[in-house]
Formats: sequence, structure tokens, C-alpha cells
Amino acid sequence: MKVDGKHMRTIWVEADRAVGIVDQTLLPHRLETRRLETLADAARAIKSMQVRGAPLIGAAAAYGVALALRADASDQSLARACTTLAATRPTAVNLAWALAEMTAAVRDRAPGVRVDAAYARAAEICEEDVANCRALGRHGLALIEAVAIRKRAGERVNVLTHCNAGWLATVDHGTALAPIYAAHDKGIAVHVFVDETRPRNQGASLTAWELLHHGVPHTVIADNAGGHLMQHDQVDLCIVGADRVTARGDAANKIGTYLKALAARDNDVPFYVAMPSSTIDFALGDGVAEIPIEERSAAEVTHMTGAAADGRIETVRIVPEGSAAANYGFDVTPARLITALITERGVIEATRAAIAGAFPERTEARAPSPA
Amino acid sequence: MKVDGKHMRTIWVEADRAVGIVDQTLLPHRLETRRLETLADAARAIKSMQVRGAPLIGAAAAYGVALALRADASDQSLARACTTLAATRPTAVNLAWALAEMTAAVRDRAPGVRVDAAYARAAEICEEDVANCRALGRHGLALIEAVAIRKRAGERVNVLTHCNAGWLATVDHGTALAPIYAAHDKGIAVHVFVDETRPRNQGASLTAWELLHHGVPHTVIADNAGGHLMQHDQVDLCIVGADRVTARGDAANKIGTYLKALAARDNDVPFYVAMPSSTIDFALGDGVAEIPIEERSAAEVTHMTGAAADGRIETVRIVPEGSAAANYGFDVTPARLITALITERGVIEATRAAIAGAFPERTEARAPSPA
Repeated sequence: MKVDGKHMRTIWVEADRAVGIVDQTLLPHRLETRRLETLADAARAIKSMQVRGAPLIGAAAAYGVALALRADASDQSLARACTTLAATRPTAVNLAWALAEMTAAVRDRAPGVRVDAAYARAAEICEEDVANCRALGRHGLALIEAVAIRKRAGERVNVLTHCNAGWLATVDHGTALAPIYAAHDKGIAVHVFVDETRPRNQGASLTAWELLHHGVPHTVIADNAGGHLMQHDQVDLCIVGADRVTARGDAANKIGTYLKALAARDNDVPFYVAMPSSTIDFALGDGVAEIPIEERSAAEVTHMTGAAADGRIETVRIVPEGSAAANYGFDVTPARLITALITERGVIEATRAAIAGAFPERTEARAPSPA
Repeated sequence: MKVDGKHMRTIWVEADRAVGIVDQTLLPHRLETRRLETLADAARAIKSMQVRGAPLIGAAAAYGVALALRADASDQSLARACTTLAATRPTAVNLAWALAEMTAAVRDRAPGVRVDAAYARAAEICEEDVANCRALGRHGLALIEAVAIRKRAGERVNVLTHCNAGWLATVDHGTALAPIYAAHDKGIAVHVFVDETRPRNQGASLTAWELLHHGVPHTVIADNAGGHLMQHDQVDLCIVGADRVTARGDAANKIGTYLKALAARDNDVPFYVAMPSSTIDFALGDGVAEIPIEERSAAEVTHMTGAAADGRIETVRIVPEGSAAANYGFDVTPARLITALITERGVIEATRAAIAGAFPERTEARAPSPA
């Protein structure tokens, strides 16, 4: 997508084969890039959330394997890279998917050609992600167009989104935001309610920044406000991303997504989850029971970082010293609350049958899972 | 309640008849008091949320009338005081209720005795609030005890609350927190999940501070986390306060309350609203359609205030310059989602019949309202 008129992706390969990323922990206050030169750099970038978002985590992990093999192309190095990277974040299944893809791409090759093969497969994973996101945008656009044709002149289509599932969460285009960008670029008057998304504020800091730089009208709201807006017919549809979707359509996404899905159901607002099929974990059925939910540092709840009046990035404490805090990263929205999944193969029902029907080659490779 | 071992209320009369308050905008970082000497002081304290919480707004408005009459005891002064104070905050009905009570107490008296009458009625309103909150605590305690007896040894009763409906929201004891304090003081192992309550963070700053100073175990969570906790059986009951409850039991409370009520319903968790009957607006039926919802400054969403590492109170920007923000103060939880109301006359169903039955003297004074 464009930043100040210049096309940019979230991850790229430098001339010397180091990997470049946008440091997302500094947005929206500063746009800075970082060079990843080693496996440790890649693992740290994922763990510290300099790169985040399920598809981008997959892409960064893929390049992490390539960086590891560049230093040491042995089987042991490959295994260590996968173990190290798999431990960085527990919820996004794209991470495990990308590591399996990378392993398959290099393990049967001689060490001498592994580095080139790894960079090639990582680049393919990135290009597949871009193509998938473009397809999500195309399929989701039809949903927005269907709302737009019912609007009177001057009325906007209002979309509510949670967290950041924009181009910053992917290699380019985004998942939940891809249909919004597609609609905006086509001239449809679309306006986005952006959930702040506590505790890390990815909505207020990343989604707002993306939309602002692309010129899409938007309003940042507290996570608490979405129910009120839906009660008062201010939201036409919700579109969110996902970190892991089970074979029956339960979707893990940023903590708080489930609450918005409940409000959407209570107010007859369509609720869509947009994600590439690499986000589907065909091994799981009951998402609430089975998807591991990351618990992160309490400091993300007790402290808040932003820009002081003089531009310094400052962290302030907002909870009294001595009070405990807990920080659950994700929650699971049961499939029954999801109107449909927006995938690279079209808009499909959040049911086991529809998911299996759309992705038969991935379903048939597995024994049927329970539930 | 106690602060560092010393008993304290949120509002009091000084020896010179100025009105003392805790400046709640500085909590949890500093405990400072302020002197209100004029009507303008009182109006500013309510509007700036140095005092907040529906019952305390009522008490502060009552003293605001007394301060106005101290300067000028005429009918015009009384009318001006009511107009000024009524305009400070739109949602809490206790404000209008207190102004009506004060007007009734002084309007038929000679100007020479109005000041004493006003201070006397304001003091009564405060004592009534304290007595009501004690009664809420007593009635709500029974609900917590009923959960506690089903727990195994060492298990805690987990209560989730939103915003601050503690003693800081009232004159003393609190509404939603009164049953929690009563249970804790009786030796019941109670633990509170405290919603941060964006955008003003009254949970993280006020509820956590109160519970910490009273010694009640608690954990601050992002507003987004409550649904996940309820899905995983971590919440035994929800208790929240209210800013206005309609004759049929719809409850306006801090923005985001509705989302927690939806999650409670989806997970069979009891959801209680605790409030004195001064919070009931018998003129209204359909809360979503009829209760006015305050929209506050976008700066409360775009900026966050806290304590820097060196103790300075610092405000930081968390939304990009150029992004719009909207700030709805309250939402309305429909009665169908409320298990029961905890009132000074007991725990009653959130239905028109039950409310009318519990408060016949207030219902009979009115013509039946529609819906």
C-alpha cells in the first residue's frame, strides 16, 4: 500500500539478503525500518511485535528460517530455527504453517542449495500472501457493494473493525481491510469505525495510521463503544481478521472480537471474518476449548505508550502500583456468531462442510477430527 | 471507606461551609482534595469529573445549590443554579432528581432561611445515599454468599465489574462494589476482575485504587477480556452500577456495559445492576431509544494520562494526528439481559411490574408511560 505516495510492503529482502521490516512498535508516531540479519533478529522481531498479524508472522518466520540457514545450512540449524521461531507466539497458526512449508522446501536438498531454496520459498510465501489478500479484497468488496447499493446519495457504508488486519498485518493489502481498500479505491463511500483495541492499541495506532495514509475516512472509538453504535444502526457490517480458524469455523482473533460478534448478532449486523486459508487449522474443531490463548505481560495493561506534547515517546502507568493485571491476547468467536468467512476462494459459511468444500485438498490430507 | 486506615467520604462540608471533595481526576496517582466555594466551582467539578458517579453527582449538585443560595438566596439564583447544574452532565438522572429535591426543600421558604434548609437537605441526600448504599451491600451480599457456599475450600468468588461504582461514585460504600466490600469484610474470599473502562479508565484508576486500599484482591483487565474470561468459567457473577434505569428496567451505564451483559447471557453468568432508586427514571420506558447518551471530547480517546517513571503526570497521544475519534459516554443494557436489580429495597427483577411493586410511592405519582 502507499505511504506518503510511495509504495511499501511490510517485509522485503535487502541487496545483501538481510530482511527489512517496518518496526510496528513505533507506529503511529514514527515510521522506521529495521534490518534482520540473524535467526535471533527474526525471533526477536516477532516476539516483540515489531512484526505482528498472523500472515506477516508467517512471512517473517519464513525469512527467519532463511536467515538461519544463511549462517548454517545443516539439519540441526534448520531444526533449531523451527523450534526457536515456533516458540515466539502461540496463537497464530500461520507461524506453524510457514515453518512446515519452509522445512518441506529445504529438508531434502543438499546444504549447499538450501539457502537459495529458502529465500525462494519465503519469497513465494510472501507473494502468495499478497495474492490471497488481493483475492480477499475482491470477494469482500462484493459484500460492501451490496450494502452500498441500498444507501441513499451521500450516505456512507459504515464498517466496524477490531485490531489491525490491514496491510501492516500481512505482506500487503491486508485481510479485513482489503475489502475496505478495494471499495474505497473503487469510489464507494466507505467509513471505518476503528476499535482502539486495548491493551496494545493496534487499532488506534496501526489501523488508524494505515487508513489515514491511504485516505480512507475513519473514526477511532473505544473498544467499549461498538455495541452502542450497533444498537443505533451506525454499523452496516463488521469485518475482522483472524489468528486461527478451526475446521468448523470458530475464529481466534484479538481479545474483544467475541464481544463485537455478540453485539452484531444482537443487532442483526453481519459479522465477517477475513483470512487466507493458511489461517485455518484443520486439526482443531472446538476453538474455545482447543485454541491456545497467549497471555502476555501485565505491563501492557498497566502501562500505555504514546507521544508526549514535545514528540518524545513516553510510557505512563495507568493502574495503581500494587494492583495486579492480566493480559489475554486473543479470544475465540464461535462459528455460530460468524455470518461468513471471507477467504481467497470466496465468501463461505463458517461451517465444517463449507470449509471442507472450499479447501478439499487440505481437508482430504487429514483424518477427520472430532467435534 | 478507609484510605490508609483513615475513614473518608467523597464529599463533606468544611467548617466555613465550603464543600470538600476528593479530586478524582488525579487518582490513582495522587490523593488530593478540593474546596468548592461557589456554584461555578460545583458545576466545574461535575463537568470536569473531579466528582463523578451518578449518586455522587446528585450529592455534589445538591451542595452546588446550597453554595449558590449562600451567595444569593433569591428565586432567580435558585433557578440559575438548577439550570447551570442540570447542564453539566446529561445521562445520570440522579442529577435532575437531586435538583428537584433541593428545589422542593427551599422554594416555599423565605430567602433568609433557605441557606440552612439547603445545607440540611443536601446533608440528608448524602446520608440517604450512604444508607442506600449500605442496603445495596446487604442485599447484594446474599447473592455473593449464595455463590460462595458452592465453592470448594480455597476457591474464590470471582466478580467482574465495569467502570467505578464504588465508594468514589457515591458518598460512601458504593453501589456495585458495596456487596463486594460487605462480602470481603465478612471474610468471604472474593476476587474482582476490574475492567479498565476506556476511555477514562475509571476501572483501572478508581476501582483498582479503592479495592487496593481496602485490601480486596483484584485483577485489572482490558475491557476486551471479559468475554474470554466468561467463556472459560472465570467469572461467577457480574455486578455493575447504573447512571439511569428506566421504569421497565433498561439500564444506562458506562459505555461497554452492554457488551459484558451480552457475554454474561451467552455464558449463563448472572448479570446484576446495583443502584439506589434515585437512579430510576420512571418517565422512561425504552432505554435504548429514550435515554440521552453523553458524547464527550474526542481527546479522551486520542490521549491517555498516567504517571511517567519519574512520577510526573503526563498526557500522551495514542491516535495519529489527523485521525478522527468519537467518545460515547454510556450505553444502554436492555432489561432482558439483566438478571436482577440490586436496590435499597432488595433484589428485584428488571421488569416494570417488579420495579413498580418495589417503589409504589414513586410509580403512583406518575401517569403510566408508554412502552
